[in-house]
Amino acid sequence: TFPNPLQDHPAYSTVKQYFVNADDTVPEKVVVQKNSPRGVHFRRAGPRQRVYFESEEVKACIVTCGGLCPGLNTVIRELVCGLSHMYNVNDVFGIQNGYKGFYSSNYLSMIPKSVNDIHKRGGTVLGTSRGGHDTKKIVDNIQDRGINQVYIIGGDGTQKGAYEIYKEIRKRGLQVAVAGIPKTIDNDIAVIDKSFGFDTAVEEAQRAINAAHVEASSAENGIGLVKLMGRYSGFIAMYATLASRDVDCCLIPESPFYLEGEGGLFEYIDRRLKENNHMVIVVAEGAGQDLIAQSIPAADQQDASGNKLLLDVGLWLTHKIKDYCKSKKMEMTIKYIGNFLVFTPMRC
Amino acid sequence: TFPNPLQDHPAYSTVKQYFVNADDTVPEKVVVQKNSPRGVHFRRAGPRQRVYFESEEVKACIVTCGGLCPGLNTVIRELVCGLSHMYNVNDVFGIQNGYKGFYSSNYLSMIPKSVNDIHKRGGTVLGTSRGGHDTKKIVDNIQDRGINQVYIIGGDGTQKGAYEIYKEIRKRGLQVAVAGIPKTIDNDIAVIDKSFGFDTAVEEAQRAINAAHVEASSAENGIGLVKLMGRYSGFIAMYATLASRDVDCCLIPESPFYLEGEGGLFEYIDRRLKENNHMVIVVAEGAGQDLIAQSIPAADQQDASGNKLLLDVGLWLTHKIKDYCKSKKMEMTIKYIGNFLVFTPMRC
Amino acid sequence: TFPNPLQDHPAYSTVKQYFVNADDTVPEKVVVQKNSPRGVHFRRAGPRQRVYFESEEVKACIVTCGGLCPGLNTVIRELVCGLSHMYNVNDVFGIQNGYKGFYSSNYLSMIPKSVNDIHKRGGTVLGTSRGGHDTKKIVDNIQDRGINQVYIIGGDGTQKGAYEIYKEIRKRGLQVAVAGIPKTIDNDIAVIDKSFGFDTAVEEAQRAINAAHVEASSAENGIGLVKLMGRYSGFIAMYATLASRDVDCCLIPESPFYLEGEGGLFEYIDRRLKENNHMVIVVAEGAGQDLIAQSIPAADQQDASGNKLLLDVGLWLTHKIKDYCKSKKMEMTIKYIGNFLVFTPMRC
Amino acid sequence: TFPNPLQDHPAYSTVKQYFVNADDTVPEKVVVQKNSPRGVHFRRAGPRQRVYFESEEVKACIVTCGGLCPGLNTVIRELVCGLSHMYNVNDVFGIQNGYKGFYSSNYLSMIPKSVNDIHKRGGTVLGTSRGGHDTKKIVDNIQDRGINQVYIIGGDGTQKGAYEIYKEIRKRGLQVAVAGIPKTIDNDIAVIDKSFGFDTAVEEAQRAINAAHVEASSAENGIGLVKLMGRYSGFIAMYATLASRDVDCCLIPESPFYLEGEGGLFEYIDRRLKENNHMVIVVAEGAGQDLIAQSIPAADQQDASGNKLLLDVGLWLTHKIKDYCKSKKMEMTIKYIGNFLVFTPMRC
Repeated sequence: TFPNPLQDHPAYSTVKQYFVNADDTVPEKVVVQKNSPRGVHFRRAGPRQRVYFESEEVKACIVTCGGLCPGLNTVIRELVCGLSHMYNVNDVFGIQNGYKGFYSSNYLSMIPKSVNDIHKRGGTVLGTSRGGHDTKKIVDNIQDRGINQVYIIGGDGTQKGAYEIYKEIRKRGLQVAVAGIPKTIDNDIAVIDKSFGFDTAVEEAQRAINAAHVEASSAENGIGLVKLMGRYSGFIAMYATLASRDVDCCLIPESPFYLEGEGGLFEYIDRRLKENNHMVIVVAEGAGQDLIAQSIPAADQQDASGNKLLLDVGLWLTHKIKDYCKSKKMEMTIKYIGNFLVFTPMRC
Repeated sequence: TFPNPLQDHPAYSTVKQYFVNADDTVPEKVVVQKNSPRGVHFRRAGPRQRVYFESEEVKACIVTCGGLCPGLNTVIRELVCGLSHMYNVNDVFGIQNGYKGFYSSNYLSMIPKSVNDIHKRGGTVLGTSRGGHDTKKIVDNIQDRGINQVYIIGGDGTQKGAYEIYKEIRKRGLQVAVAGIPKTIDNDIAVIDKSFGFDTAVEEAQRAINAAHVEASSAENGIGLVKLMGRYSGFIAMYATLASRDVDCCLIPESPFYLEGEGGLFEYIDRRLKENNHMVIVVAEGAGQDLIAQSIPAADQQDASGNKLLLDVGLWLTHKIKDYCKSKKMEMTIKYIGNFLVFTPMRC
Repeated sequence: TFPNPLQDHPAYSTVKQYFVNADDTVPEKVVVQKNSPRGVHFRRAGPRQRVYFESEEVKACIVTCGGLCPGLNTVIRELVCGLSHMYNVNDVFGIQNGYKGFYSSNYLSMIPKSVNDIHKRGGTVLGTSRGGHDTKKIVDNIQDRGINQVYIIGGDGTQKGAYEIYKEIRKRGLQVAVAGIPKTIDNDIAVIDKSFGFDTAVEEAQRAINAAHVEASSAENGIGLVKLMGRYSGFIAMYATLASRDVDCCLIPESPFYLEGEGGLFEYIDRRLKENNHMVIVVAEGAGQDLIAQSIPAADQQDASGNKLLLDVGLWLTHKIKDYCKSKKMEMTIKYIGNFLVFTPMRC
Repeated sequence: TFPNPLQDHPAYSTVKQYFVNADDTVPEKVVVQKNSPRGVHFRRAGPRQRVYFESEEVKACIVTCGGLCPGLNTVIRELVCGLSHMYNVNDVFGIQNGYKGFYSSNYLSMIPKSVNDIHKRGGTVLGTSRGGHDTKKIVDNIQDRGINQVYIIGGDGTQKGAYEIYKEIRKRGLQVAVAGIPKTIDNDIAVIDKSFGFDTAVEEAQRAINAAHVEASSAENGIGLVKLMGRYSGFIAMYATLASRDVDCCLIPESPFYLEGEGGLFEYIDRRLKENNHMVIVVAEGAGQDLIAQSIPAADQQDASGNKLLLDVGLWLTHKIKDYCKSKKMEMTIKYIGNFLVFTPMRC
């Protein structure tokens, strides 16, 4: 190991202690009772006194895989600038168009100047694609080109691929570090405060909610229904609901609901329309999957390979609400907003 | 007739001539040649020296009909404030939820204070609905309540209804003025400079174009396709294209196009992808209707009442482009953005 | 004490445990080492199983004091709506125009409907003012009107006033709860995650930075200098710097700096202009006070009452940099942006 | 002359007539009376059937001078892209940092690819400066480098310089076209519909007005005073006032005003505060100059060279209003917003 080059950085010169001690930890739970046991602790992230690679020997590469998320370019920029300005690393390469770029495209040389303004643009300057993961070909190329730091930005499928790369690298006994950077707009990773792009998604989601509210409140018995992102978690839906304050009801995967009878959604719709003449409902895309499953044939719930499909809770709810109101002879106008745009650069 | 109360308004006191002369006109065409005839001229709009109604006898009402358009609340606000502050009219009523509100809801009393902030909200504070036009019932109510100025804000269907109301009023010999205020986000009215809400739609359209551009440029051979409003005209599509400058091709109803062969869309797609690796296409919803019509059964082009349907040019183009690229074994990613939100309050 | 009315709230019915235990605590420091002592813990905030007041007996009032901060209306709205919807409290009053409103204005009755949209407006619907704190008159009025919950939103001066009110209430033996809600756009309160309005200030600050960057980069040897809020802390300056990524140098009160010699600001300016032709400097208003103090007479550093004045670091730096460049015969254009607007409603 | 290369452009192939006839004119006044004379007509702008230069012989250059204005980069981009894509001109150069760049810096080669995204950035990618106009040196360089089209973007001072260049070019008998592109955020050019950047300034101005309105309406007898751009014209002030609708009074250079007595500003302030508790005043920077001149020594109204200075109407009004309210023992809070940022890229 080598002394961390950060120690010579002028920006840090007035800060007293900025390296993380080897035995620093952070508790999983911050709410504690007097005599409760200490519980699980995580190792603390941050710069160490000593680092594993010597700066001039580092040859790093960065790849972005899967769908877009606000902030991809910001992450790329910080990797390039951080490696260069803070760790004196000058060999950083960009892999083009996702995993397949490891073996089918030129590697782009990246320096701070070339990424200087990219955080102001949406998308990823490296390009991205789905699939294309061929462990052997990828590690062959890493090995041939002498890459020893691999930064992989992507969702859970991508990270599984990163793990395969890591295993193959170990098997071959290479001195290569593989770092996975989680990309999930849904913020559904327990051990970090917030996933990048989440705040931007919440802000954009409020535009959709606002549109639904405008439509609902301009009609008689108007209902605005907005489907937001969140396959397994309701973070975007809940945060956007709280921030907007125009939402009457927010349905999320974590909390089951039902339509009919006491305490059901229909009863609540009745009440809110009577009280307020209009209402706004937000639903996370992963909410109510069990309910929908009961009403459609099992065959339609799987894709060709037998994988479970995400059923469209927004359209389903729209129809159910329409049917209910018809059956009650209630005049009503429903506006369904089923998708919205989050391709702006990350706000912050 | 009576002297225009505007003449006493302090805001006008330093302006020398602000009334429109009875014989002022504006030419239809402003490009002229030396000896060309004068051509058609329109009567000039604006305040007249003398007005038809005495202020204290005016009883005005305002109604909004049909779909939402940015600026509805601004128009309502200006009617109320203009009638009150400039013409000293104190009896202004709002009709709720469109035409049917004339005979089925209470009339809302409207004063400047109650509309003070409404221009900052989207939608219409009066509510709106489609249909509900019953000429007899409407004119009965106008007559019974002594309304003598009727302001009707809506699209072409609504204005046809306004004309029916006007004819019925004439038939009954009532002294009631009916004013139609055209609502068309598409800006497709030749004799006015710009329809309200158009600029806001153009600005919002650029968000959709931007999203398509981000997606297209983050993929290999990425195509972004955006369908914008414009059933019979390409104003929103063309203005948004010009303002955005990220669009490679803009298809509008006024200008026919074809897909295959020299000068066709496919040829152009080939070229742009080769030159630039990605491209953005904007299409107005009314473009290419003849082309699509050729490829689907006549029965599917009409609604239940036999009216011509607007065929979805966006989905059709998406499929055609996919098929074309497949046939050429061209790898390509297409992102189709088929609807976007314009429910913000009017900007500017 | 009484059972918390929250337990009957439908929104909570599916959530298992939402009351805070009496002995829940949160550690001051979340970074711990294996055998380190447990350290200071704070009592955890949140709803309790039992509450002190019976809902129908609560008579609450809300007051906003001092300067504006984004989010004031959001806080007011949440107090009114939370008291009403969650705690069944129906008697909530607004005090107008700050402390003096306790004894010189009518109390406004506030219900959820009347605050429904206020979070979309900047400022405070209650009005605000500085000063006007007369403990005796205020407590007299609280007593006379039977108020038993007082919510006071304001900065440190305001909170000192709140403490006086609390002491007077205790002295008189009244059963009145006084809650201080800290208002500080600077985020300089250690024990909370973030003060309300801070994120909005950071976002607006980026507009000023962006303007400075545009000016600097459009000139030869252009320097953009932005003064941001932060009397005793550099949170806004640092967060805006990090988010913007266009800043070359950020000066904050927590970290002293000097102008001349090695490691000084001038040396850094020299270097950045040579490398990049332009640069952007951000300075928190409280930075460099000691440095400025050396260059101006002591008398000018106090107000009439002998209080220490905040010296204008922005203008001072502008002159110092100009003088330096002149002395070095360096052509340079400096653009100083000394104040910017943060009066938008809170974003979130 | 040569045939216009535009005629081969595919984008124009479906448009029937797009060249401007040599004798097309546009009337100065579009309001006409039946028998009024035809009046002044201007020659119509637009592409001609035949052009003066052969494409491959054109060597064009672009320069930006003076202060920043939203849209500079858009104008640069359109010149480069228009010359290249529509007129097949491949030799386009950028002059750096204003007039002095003609003789003291390298000329930048500009192609569509290099200006592709610049319209999304504020400022000017060419850099700008004030002064530096040396006719002889500039024309020497134009001549030496074989430039035959010179595009000069700037305000009235810059255009006077452009005229000097043109005269020198004529004197030397060079075949060089000089085109002045007027840059005035104030929109004070009678013969064009709108100057570039004006709409963006109006939109940004509304932010300042909104801030003033929030401050005014959150205080007791709050007055918000906003100074906007407009040295000789009130276009920005009036458009922003109309768009915002939160302004009670708008003062512009075209319309004189006075403070005291009947019909004066003070009387109006009295009235609005009584009616509404707060008010917003907008003043164009060029308004009221005569009034201010009366209250300060003549010597302070000129700069060192004896040129008339623009006196600060905003500060002057702030003091006058404060004095007035003091004299009337009226408690009042005034918030003065004297400058605001318009450095965003052009919106459109």
